[in-house]
Order: sequence, then structure tokens, then C-alpha cells
Amino acid sequence: MPNLEKKTLTKQSEDFAQWYQDLVYEAELAEVSEVRGCGIVRPYGLKIWELIKAELSRRLEDDGVENVYFPIFVPLENLEAEKDHVKGFAPELAIVTHAGGEELTNKLAVRPTSEAAMYKTYAKWIQSYKYLPLRLNQWANVVRWEKRPRAFLRWSEFLWQEGHTAFATETEARAESRKMLDIYTDIYKFMAIPGFSGQKSESEKFAGAVDTLTIEVMAKDGKAIQGATSHYLGTNFAEVFKVNYLGSDGNSHLVQQNSWGLSWRAVGAVVMVHGDDNGLRLPPNIAPIQVVIIPIYKDELSQKKVLENSNKISADLKKKYRVKRDERDNESPGFKYNYWELRGVPVRLEIGGREVEENKVTVFRRDLNTKETVVLGELAVYLKKLMKDIHKNLYQQALDFSGSHIKKIKSWEEIKATNIWYEASWSEDPATEKELKEKFGIVSRVLPLKNVSKPAKNKKCFISGQAAKRDWLFAKCY
Amino acid sequence: MPNLEKKTLTKQSEDFAQWYQDLVYEAELAEVSEVRGCGIVRPYGLKIWELIKAELSRRLEDDGVENVYFPIFVPLENLEAEKDHVKGFAPELAIVTHAGGEELTNKLAVRPTSEAAMYKTYAKWIQSYKYLPLRLNQWANVVRWEKRPRAFLRWSEFLWQEGHTAFATETEARAESRKMLDIYTDIYKFMAIPGFSGQKSESEKFAGAVDTLTIEVMAKDGKAIQGATSHYLGTNFAEVFKVNYLGSDGNSHLVQQNSWGLSWRAVGAVVMVHGDDNGLRLPPNIAPIQVVIIPIYKDELSQKKVLENSNKISADLKKKYRVKRDERDNESPGFKYNYWELRGVPVRLEIGGREVEENKVTVFRRDLNTKETVVLGELAVYLKKLMKDIHKNLYQQALDFSGSHIKKIKSWEEIKATNIWYEASWSEDPATEKELKEKFGIVSRVLPLKNVSKPAKNKKCFISGQAAKRDWLFAKCY
Repeated sequence: MPNLEKKTLTKQSEDFAQWYQDLVYEAELAEVSEVRGCGIVRPYGLKIWELIKAELSRRLEDDGVENVYFPIFVPLENLEAEKDHVKGFAPELAIVTHAGGEELTNKLAVRPTSEAAMYKTYAKWIQSYKYLPLRLNQWANVVRWEKRPRAFLRWSEFLWQEGHTAFATETEARAESRKMLDIYTDIYKFMAIPGFSGQKSESEKFAGAVDTLTIEVMAKDGKAIQGATSHYLGTNFAEVFKVNYLGSDGNSHLVQQNSWGLSWRAVGAVVMVHGDDNGLRLPPNIAPIQVVIIPIYKDELSQKKVLENSNKISADLKKKYRVKRDERDNESPGFKYNYWELRGVPVRLEIGGREVEENKVTVFRRDLNTKETVVLGELAVYLKKLMKDIHKNLYQQALDFSGSHIKKIKSWEEIKATNIWYEASWSEDPATEKELKEKFGIVSRVLPLKNVSKPAKNKKCFISGQAAKRDWLFAKCY
Repeated sequence: MPNLEKKTLTKQSEDFAQWYQDLVYEAELAEVSEVRGCGIVRPYGLKIWELIKAELSRRLEDDGVENVYFPIFVPLENLEAEKDHVKGFAPELAIVTHAGGEELTNKLAVRPTSEAAMYKTYAKWIQSYKYLPLRLNQWANVVRWEKRPRAFLRWSEFLWQEGHTAFATETEARAESRKMLDIYTDIYKFMAIPGFSGQKSESEKFAGAVDTLTIEVMAKDGKAIQGATSHYLGTNFAEVFKVNYLGSDGNSHLVQQNSWGLSWRAVGAVVMVHGDDNGLRLPPNIAPIQVVIIPIYKDELSQKKVLENSNKISADLKKKYRVKRDERDNESPGFKYNYWELRGVPVRLEIGGREVEENKVTVFRRDLNTKETVVLGELAVYLKKLMKDIHKNLYQQALDFSGSHIKKIKSWEEIKATNIWYEASWSEDPATEKELKEKFGIVSRVLPLKNVSKPAKNKKCFISGQAAKRDWLFAKCY
């Protein structure tokens, strides 16, 4: 934990993209690697992902999902079998042509996702209805070659989980798709991030899916981040890979499938939703360090007392929190404050000579950047409540922000700024979405869940003026 | 959990290799994939790895090691920079030549290990002695193209962890190397596996290392499995990647490095060390299911009572153990016994009408294949002791086995069977090792720790008859 060169973080309001890039680097979340488009995720950034992963793992395990591991390589011919799928992924593939000193007869793609890697094997495993449902998940790296990489959000390699399920009926598979969307929505809540859950449009859905459900998150620059997706694949892949089962009726049927995934772009979302001009603001649930303790002293006598005190407090708190003591004596308290604020540590305890004498600590909360003095005997209760408050406050701030950055419009002529979202009635005609994208760089993000079964009666499409179908949200996106 | 076709497991004593292959498949640990040399690890097999991983993770975290993630791709020129390293790994590389629809100017290797992927960045991170030691670890997949793949032990892709550290001094780096060997030794003990810890010979050490420490495990066919390795790299890579630090003396120095890794071949070791003719025998620590409950009934009346009872017992035990109730009513108790014995579940509870009436359960332990009847009120205490006993017994059996399968010899003319290990005084001349390998298929496995500083005074090399240096262990290996 040595002294970094002191740099100034670009102001968020001045240049959001630069602020993001600076912050990811300065807070030591990640940095660019030699391999174009790929990132190096440093311990502080990876720990945030590991905490998200642990929570999602727990949820999936409680729900009876089991983990599996398939090879990273997919025979190209498998990928090419589902026509929409290969059209969607072909431009982003990395191809292995040589291995073990020889040219390969059958070239291999590095998996961009694993439908084509898994489902031939599913066909072998699923013999009859007794083997259903099959609900498997894989924590893995995948590769999608990016022309315009961005830290966490668009790297050519990323870590994620991909669930792949098979059911006997459409009803069950659609229910699974929805259940996973709800779990993802909870995971975003765990990160104090409110999301907009619903359905994707034809042009924005997963290549190979019948329907894609999504949770969309609003970054502080008003762009949308696709937080996670849950696909209902129907029998699209089952037909191609011959995933049949013998039903209790004695006949052979195709299985109904899903896939669903959440990646470490969630870390990028956390930065973009909660961060401010001073750096990260991490919700306690996913903060690698929840409490940082800064001992403050001027001479050896006070040093001894202060360190004794801070060690004792630290030892107590470690039973409940992820705690770090910053005892670097070549850095000033002020430097340390900035250092840990940049890193978004939710709570800072300042312990100086006066605090020791008065049996108190000064407690700083990063979400509001405010301080209070707390009597030591009350610290445990105070912190328990504070952690909840911080989570709640970060969530509420994000909710208020997104609520105030959506504008209802009736015609695309009302679109001025592109740093907000638009709510509008839409014909759902892909041609109009293409026009919208060309003109404003804006696309449909999500048909909110509450609007899925709610026709926009007697309303006109905000683009074409034709009859509208339902009310959607539109925005620029990452 | 449907009914598998009933197959007979090849007898371990008749054909060990076939027994292993059968068991890995039948117990649903893993199976071969379409991609040559790569395996599919199924939930039951992956869970064993996840339990090993969780324990090792905990140990590393307690020791202050932090996790990091570097890209899966390594520029070929980086790999080629360290001459011994590339010589060792070049024949096993998988090469990406095309990505994003274009031919790459700089070809990329899929990482076979990450020294060449990481250390250029280490050079950037480590500015002065204040940044040392740097102790990072990565949980990742790596690819080494295998001509002769074998489940878990030699797959072209495998999951592992690789630690990469940098220190100021050789003393510290050598101590780290030894510390990690000790942690790996503990992890094998956690799996109830005794290992032979020590040093590798010149020809068997890691390509690019100064010294390699290893833990070698004896499979039941007498072959050696390299369980994990911990390398002292000296300044070999630091020179190539210019990993210098400014010392407190004001001068620039090269860092002293280590790398150390343990892979899912540990799962293969568990199968080969503990398995028997009836299938797996899993130590409780790493058993995905620690207790399986089989309710036994003949009519509806007893069914109701038995199920009520087994549900209650199951709910109680789930607080402490990984428990599974097998309530399939299309399978006989006998079928279920075999099914779970094959899968190595350490403890089976049989609950029938008589047990319910008498407030008892029948407890079967897989390590000894014996049964006892236990009063319900004493079950908790009984199981707690039993789990410890099973672990201890499996460990002792493995220890006894390996102890009785090592023969001390003075000349290689005494080598008859190759299904045991040999202990012998050796000149440590690589040429003699080559001869030994050609003649018997046997190589040096390890110079036991206790012999590292113990010269074989006045002894002769068992191969050449020249002066011997130290006493080594030799064996066939996986």
C-alpha cells in the first residue's frame, strides 16, 4: 500500500468518460493490458466482483442450480449451427488455428457464450422427462473481440456466470427466465442499484433467443448499462442440437431452454451509478474494505496510546466487518482521507489523542461525506445502523437520479439532450428503431415489466406516427 | 437424479486405468468433450474441486495473498522471452491467429501459465522496495495441449490457481516457496492424502525455475501424481521482463520471484488414492454429499412414518452437514446403496419401519463398508466422531499403502515391478535419469525434504555406480 503519485481525478461533470477511466485506474480497480481490448483486474476491483459473485452463488445454490464446467473451446461448426446465433457472434470470435505444434483440421472458437458448447451434451444427458428440468450454471471467462473496449463494460475477455437450463414445457422455461431476472434484480439491489427490468426489442435481444429479459441501469451520465440478461430460447437451439426427451406420453419432444448471465460489468455499473467527483462510493455489501481506521498522532506518547486504541477497536470490528488499519507513518491523515475516499470505503474511523482521552471515535461516512463523533461503547450499535443507512441512502440517491432523468415524449422531435432516457409509445417496428439510432444514437433499452401486457391503446408511435403497441424506454447505451 | 443404466465398474486390481476412466464417468464426475483432450466436469466432480478451492482460498487469504485476474491471452513474444520457459511450453501451446474477423499481426497464445502474462506489469507496479513483497494469486483456466489426455490429470484445459510473488531477497523468496509447499501439503491432508514433499530434479523442474518444490502422491497403482508445485524462480524472469525495484540503498535491484500452483488434478488424486472396487470413497471435507438418507418402506402406512422421520432427521443434520435424501420410489434400497457407494458418500443413514419404531437409525460408513445401529438421541455426537474417524482412517490407509510400496534399492538391477516406488542414492546427473526413463519408464519424483541437506556420504549412484549425492524417490508417473 505505498504512496501513489498524487493525481487529480477528472471531474465527473466535466468529462464522464475520462472520469470513469481515471477512477478505474486511480482506485486500482483495473488497468489496460498489452493484449488489445483485454484488462487486468487488480485485487481491489476483483474483490468487488468476488463479493457480487458470492451473493449470486448463494442465491443460485439455494435455488437448486448446480455448477458445471465446459471447455473454453467450441468447434466452429457447432457455433455455425444456429443461424441467428452465429450471425450475432461471428464478428467477435477469437479463433484458435494451431495447437500442440500442429494446424488444427477443425478450427476452434474461444467461447463467446456456451450454448453451442453445451447443448450437444445436453442432448446426450437428457433421455426422458425424468431428467428434466436440467438447471446448470458455469462461472467462466468468455471472449468477444471488442473494437471499442471500455473497462469492465466492454473488454474482449470477461468473467461471468452463464446459466443454461432445459425444461419440458414453455410455461416452465418462461417462468425460469422471469425468476432469474428477479434474482438479478435482487443482486443489483444488493449493490444498492435500482434497475429497470423488462423485455428487449427484436433487434436488441440475444442472438438465438425467442425473448430476452434484461435489467437496465442508468449511469450518472444518463447512458444505459445492460446489467444482466435472461433469455427464453424456446426450441431454437434444441432443434439444432437435437435436444429431445421421451415424454411421459411416450413421444419424443424438444426441450424448452433458457440461458442467463451476469458479468463483471456489474463492477462498472457500481462505479458509474455511485461514484462522485471524489471517487468511488461503495455500498457496504460489496466494499472490499468496509471500515478504514486512521490513527492520528503527533508525538511518540500519543502514538502509543492511539495505536493501542485503534488496534483494539480494529480487532473488535473485524469480527463483523472487513476492516483495514492505515498505519503508514509517511503519509498525513489528509492524504489518507483522500486515498480511501477515492477508493469508496463506506466508513472511516478517525482516532486521535482527543478521541482516546474522551473514549470516542470520529466516524466519517463516504456516501454523504459527513462526520459524527461517537462514544466507543455505542460504536457497535451505531455502525450496524450506519451500514444499513449507507446502503439505503445510496439506493435512494440512485433511484431519485434515474427518476428525474426520464422524460415522457410523444414525438422524437422532443428529443434534445441524449444524456437522459425517454419513455415513449412505440410501434415496435425494427425499421423505426434503426432510424432512431441513426438520428440520435439512441435505441430501445427495455419494455418495463408492467407494460409487457399493457397495450398502448389509441397511442401513436413516437417515431413513425403509426399505431403504437406498448410504452418503452429509450436511451444511449454502453 | 434418474436411474442410470446399471453398469459394472471394472475391478481396480484388474485394470487400474480402465477402472479410473469408468469411475470418473459412472460417478458423474466428468466426461470427454467434443474438443479433443478437453473434459466436461459435471456438478458432482466440480463440487469436489470447489470444496478444495474454498479451503485453499481461505488459507491464502489468511496469509495475506490477494487475487488478481490477467488476460487469458499472452503475446507470443512475451512467452518467447524466457528461453527455458518457451522451450518447456512451446509444444503445448494453443495459438489464436484470428480475432474480430481479422488476422492478428501479433499472434496470441492461450496462457499455459501466466509468468509471461504478468511480469511485464509487475515491472510497472513495483517501483521501490516499498511495493514489496507483492503476493498475488489468480484462479483461472489454462491450456496445455495434451497428446495423451487423461481425466483431471492431463486435460488440454484445466482449472487451477497460480500464485506469483516478488520479494526483495532470495531468502524471502525461498521461504515463500517452502511456505506454499507446506500449505499444499496441508491441503492434501485436508483431502486425507499423505504426500511426499520435497525438491524436483533438474530435468523435472518447472521450465524457467531455479528450483521446484513438489508434493508427490502415490496412486493405488503405484504411480506418482504431482500434486502441486511451488517454484523459486530466482531472477530468471525478472531479468527478462526488467522487474527492478529501487532499494532502500538507493540502487536498482532485480526482484526475487516465485510461482506456485495447484490444479483440479487434485480431484484425480482423490479418486486414485481413496477409490476401491465399489467406487469412490470421499473424505467428508470434500464430499459434495456427506450424508445420504435412504428411507425404506413397504406400504403406504410405513411410508408416511418413515418419510416424516427421515425428513426430520435430514432437517436436523442439514445444519451441520451436506445432506441428500434419496426418495426415488422407482428404485430399490439395494440399488440406491450401490448408487451412493459408487459416488463415495462417506455416511449413509438407512431408515425403515423398524428404525422408526425403535427410535434408531442404521449408519453405514463407506470407508470401511460397515454398518452400526445408533439411537436417534445419540446420532449427532456419533456422526461428529464418525466424520473425524473416516477422515483419519482414509488418511491412515493411504499412508500405510504408500509406506508399503516403497522399496530401497542400491542398484537399478533390483528394479522388477514398476508399480511401486524406489528409494535410492543418486548422482543427480540428468544423463542417468534419461537412461533410467528409457529402460524402465521411471523418473525421479522427489528429493524428500529431510534429505535436501543430507548428502549420501560414501554411497554410490544406483544407476551409474559413481558417487551419489542424495537419496531420492523414483517412480512411474501420471
